[in-house]
Order: sequence, then structure tokens, then C-alpha cells
Amino acid sequence: MSEADGRFMRLALSLAARGLGSVWPNPAVGCVIVRDGRIAGRGWTQPGGRPHAERRALDQAGAAAQGGTAYVTLEPCAHFGHTPPCALGLIEAGITRVVSAFEDPDPRVAGKGHAMLRAAGIEVVTGVMEAEARALQAGFLSRISYNRPWLALKLGASFDGRIALANGESQWITGPEARARVQALRARFDAVLVGGGTARADDPLLTVRAFTPVRAPVRVIVARRLDLPRDRLAGSLSAAPLWLAHGAEAPVEARAYWAGLGAELIELPETPAGLDPAALMMALSGRGLTRVFCEGGGQLAAALMAAGLVDELIGFTAGVMLGADARPGIGALGLDRLTEAPRYRLTEVQPIGGDVLARWRRD
Amino acid sequence: MSEADGRFMRLALSLAARGLGSVWPNPAVGCVIVRDGRIAGRGWTQPGGRPHAERRALDQAGAAAQGGTAYVTLEPCAHFGHTPPCALGLIEAGITRVVSAFEDPDPRVAGKGHAMLRAAGIEVVTGVMEAEARALQAGFLSRISYNRPWLALKLGASFDGRIALANGESQWITGPEARARVQALRARFDAVLVGGGTARADDPLLTVRAFTPVRAPVRVIVARRLDLPRDRLAGSLSAAPLWLAHGAEAPVEARAYWAGLGAELIELPETPAGLDPAALMMALSGRGLTRVFCEGGGQLAAALMAAGLVDELIGFTAGVMLGADARPGIGALGLDRLTEAPRYRLTEVQPIGGDVLARWRRD
Repeated sequence: MSEADGRFMRLALSLAARGLGSVWPNPAVGCVIVRDGRIAGRGWTQPGGRPHAERRALDQAGAAAQGGTAYVTLEPCAHFGHTPPCALGLIEAGITRVVSAFEDPDPRVAGKGHAMLRAAGIEVVTGVMEAEARALQAGFLSRISYNRPWLALKLGASFDGRIALANGESQWITGPEARARVQALRARFDAVLVGGGTARADDPLLTVRAFTPVRAPVRVIVARRLDLPRDRLAGSLSAAPLWLAHGAEAPVEARAYWAGLGAELIELPETPAGLDPAALMMALSGRGLTRVFCEGGGQLAAALMAAGLVDELIGFTAGVMLGADARPGIGALGLDRLTEAPRYRLTEVQPIGGDVLARWRRD
Repeated sequence: MSEADGRFMRLALSLAARGLGSVWPNPAVGCVIVRDGRIAGRGWTQPGGRPHAERRALDQAGAAAQGGTAYVTLEPCAHFGHTPPCALGLIEAGITRVVSAFEDPDPRVAGKGHAMLRAAGIEVVTGVMEAEARALQAGFLSRISYNRPWLALKLGASFDGRIALANGESQWITGPEARARVQALRARFDAVLVGGGTARADDPLLTVRAFTPVRAPVRVIVARRLDLPRDRLAGSLSAAPLWLAHGAEAPVEARAYWAGLGAELIELPETPAGLDPAALMMALSGRGLTRVFCEGGGQLAAALMAAGLVDELIGFTAGVMLGADARPGIGALGLDRLTEAPRYRLTEVQPIGGDVLARWRRD
């Protein structure tokens, strides 16, 4: 990898990141067109997934794309869908070299984009900053490869890992800066997920309010019997989609109420421990979600952890001590050995106001 | 404060820090002698508390101290003890200007050092980097002002605040880098403190083994009935002092056993919740300790927290999830409102290996 290739791919990755949370079910791709060492066009996947990054960068470059190099964070698509494939667009624009981070595992692409470019006489280099690109597009990759979204679990807790006092009081443990950061994080995910207990206890809107997101994250609530507080949620249906996952025993009246308001109902199979978390993830993936941000509660978080479905941990820790009688952030996991405990790799740590933000991912 | 005064005081503070953990019951002081803008001598309080920082810096400067400025992180002492007072030493060496961080609250000094210097015609500036100096010498200040040592509480825990599985397995939650850092921290404190439950469960040596400390931290174990595992502790008495805090009902046999080995016994009054934590802190202060590092367990930590005796929280957090059935790091605190929960201010956060180190202090 040349120094210039790395530099332009890094720029393409930073552009790609702008699409996170707003492009599902598509991948968040970035593209930079360079001619004679100068940037002629920049693009990233637009809200809803179209236009694609390459199309935007080519449009911006115009005639300057002729003889240029295109840096793309994912193999350009090769299939005719709503629009002609990006590989064709690059060929028609006169691009002579394409640098891509890795091959798109989507079976409709899967090497065909690179092949189409090579067949047109374009030099194709791939594998540039592949690890970074895979990490950024992990949601899309998880959906394509495992039929489930990338799942981040957030915990806003005291120094001793507690999320509320025994009496339920939880406002506020972390400070205003951390809470604002949570809103910003929500906007980077396709959906926000909570359990019914949290919805009943806090009646949260789960919307992004600190600013107007490009595309409001879907709100997903898991509630076996659809026994949710109604007024606030019902009044917020225009603000963001509401999907309710429930069991077979959810009353007809409740189903009709929420469906009548425009909420999407997702019936899940039950396991002895509650609704099947793997079926939930598959259902969300089937509806196009690539990145899901779970904000608790403890029971849902434990079910997702125990099923091996959590890809990332995002912790906000406050310098406050609540004690063992306060409520834990994660339910019981029934571990017998430390070697069985799920381990994550630290990717980021920083102070946020008076709290600590740390992120870990599974590799 | 001039730029040069700040710079030399900062150097004096970094020298002072070298004495932390090895100078009790004395304060860890740093001193820099400057003449004509050049550093002529540097000193810090030596192990055991003597010689003082000023004496060391003056000895290093020799004749070059004549007409120079002395930067000291604490008011120079004015009383004749084992050695003549430092204020006299500075006068005799021909120092013409003294910059000190703040007045020593020790009643034997308390302004007398500054007064002695001024009476000799020396210019005295005080209050330079006072906040930083007070933070560094917080242990000494706590002992002088409140008759208790500065108490740091360490928690090495999982992402969800757990220190062991339900079955007691705890080796290892954090990684080797974090554990090495704990050893380094121990050496910066006068004593390491644990409860009897931890001593019985882990039979820890509580010594600094990664390197040889200048002065081995005292080991303090709180065990109401002195029911401690004997062999390993007994075999380690030459490695570091062992102080055992117990209640009135501790059996005569156990008292005799430990006293015979050279352990120091500290009898404490009992409260309905166990041994009185405030009496423990007063007893440690009375024996000269200025900085104590508590490593648990959960019950002792909760008792110290509830009594308002914890000045600093030191958290090592691992990217592992243990679940609510695992053991909490801190016992119950019985809080009814979040506003009653003890709050601390973040002072440091950094990655340590794959774990996160965060430190908070009470202001």
C-alpha cells in the first residue's frame, strides 16, 4: 500500500462514517476520486442508501474523473437495481484505477464488481485498509454474513456497575455530556433497542432530541405481552418508527392498538427464558437493520449476552458509588468459569464530562 | 506567578512525588535550588522521612546556593527535631528568595517557617501551584487536619462491576498490565488494606513483587476475630510489616500467635455493622500512616464508603461480562436517593493493556 493510497482510503473511510445509521439496509460506503494527486470528487452513501458513494463522487468530479483513481471503502456494486451499477459508472466516467478496501460479500456483488472493472481494462487494487473498512462496515457485514445486525450494548452505570437505586431512581447517574453523547450515538445506529421493563420503568422516548438526525433511528421494544405505557409512546409515532417485538400470548387488543397507530409488530417464538433473542436479531436483520444499539434493561442485556449476540460494549461510568443493593446493569449469566465469560477488546477510552466512556468490541 | 516560578515549582512537585509511599509519617516534599536561572540543587524527602528535601537540595548545591532561590512544595519546617529546621538551613546557606506552595498546617510549623525566613531578610513568595501541591500532599494534609490517612479504594472489576464469579473464581478478570500497575500503585501508598473475607478467600501476600519498593508498604488486615489463614502470611513477615485490626472478642490464642510473629495488633471498638471504620482510620493515622490503598473486599469497602472515609476511587475495568449472579465489588450502601450517593471527580483515565484505569477523587 503506497502512502497516497492509504491517505485517500482513510479519507474515504471518514466520509463513509457519515452514513452510519442512515443508510440501512445498504452499507455506509465512502468514495474519493483523485486525478494527478488532487481530489476531484468525494461522496458517501446518502440517507436511505441511494445515491451510492461512487455516484456522488463521480458527479462531483465531472470531467475530471477521466483518467483518475477511485478510492472506495467497499467493492463497487455490479448489479442493476434501482440504478445502474457503480462499476459501470466508474467505467463510463473514464476512471483508470480503482482502489477498494475489500470484496463485497453480498452474493449479488461478490467479486463481480472488481471483475467488471478489470474486464474494462481498469487497474484494480484491493485490500487497502481492509481491517479498518471491515470494522466500519461491521453492521452491513454482520447482516450479510450472519443474518443479524451488529449489536452494541450500552451501559450507563456507577463506579460499581449499578444503573439505578433499589427503589428505581436512576436520574441521573451520568452527567449531561455523557447523556448528550448517548443521543449522538443513537443517531449512528439504525435502531435503538430496549426491553419492556425499561420501557415501563422509564417510559423513554428513545428518540434523538439533542439535534435532528438525518434519519431517525427505529425504536425497538421487546415486550412479551405488549404491556407498555401508551400515552407518551403513542404521541411520538411521527418522530421515529416503533417496532414492538412480542410473544404469541400478546392480547389481541394490545396488538390492534399498536398496529392501529402504525407500529410494526414482530411476533417472536418463546424460550423457557423468555422471547428468543436470536429470533429477534434475525427478524431485525430481515427488516434491513444493520446496526442496533441496546440500552437495556438488565434482563434483555443478559439474554442477548448469553446468546452470544453482543458485538460491542459501550460503557459510560460515573464517579458515584451506589452499592450492592442498587440495581445491576446486566442480569444473571450463570457462569461457572471465568474462561466462559465473554471477553471484548478495548477500542476507545476517553473522559466525557465527569464520566468515562469506554468501548470494547468482540473480534 | 511568573513563568519561571511555575516551571521550577512543577519540577519540585515531580521530585516530591518520588517520596510518596516511603516517607510517612512525614510529608513527601520536593525542593529545587536555582541561581542565575540555573538549577543548582534538587532534593526530595528521603525514605523514612529524613533527610528533608531542602537539606538534600542544599547539600547538592553547596556554595552555589548563595544568593539563590529555593522552590519548596511545602513551607520549610521551623522546629528542632532530629535535625535543625530547614528554614535555618536555607538561611545559613545564603538563600535570598524562597518560593513555597503553601503554609504547612502542622502546628509545629504553621507559618513559623516563613516567618523565620522573612525575619532573616529572605523574600518569601507563597501560594505558587498550591492546588497541585495540596493534591500531591493530600495524605499528609489529611492526617494533620482530620487525623486520618488519605484513603484510596481500588476496584478491579468486570464491565458490569463484578470482582468474582458466584463460586469465588476471580483469577483473572483484569490483565497482566493492570495487575502490574496495581503493584506499582501499592508502592506509592504507605499501606495496603484488605478485609478478613478477602484475606481468607484469596490469601493474598499484599506485597510489592514486580520490583523492590524503597520501603515496603505496611499490610493492614481487618479481621474481627483474627481468623486468618496463617502459613503464607506468617512466612511473609520479613517482607513487609503486618498490622491486624480486630475486635474485643478476638481469641487470646490468635492474638498471641500473631503478636509472637511480630504483627502489630490494633483493637477496635465494634459497631452494630462491624468494626468501627472511623476508629480504624484514626488508629492508622495515629501510627503515622498518611496514604492507604484499600483493595476490598466488598464489605470493608462499603463500610468505609458509608462512613465517608474514602477519598479516591481507582478503577480497573476489564472488557468481560460476569452477570448479576457474580460477586459485587462493593457491599450494600442502603441509599434512598441518588443525591445521597457519594460523588467523585474524574482526575485520570487511560488504557492499561486491554483494561481501563480511571481515578476519581473527592474534592
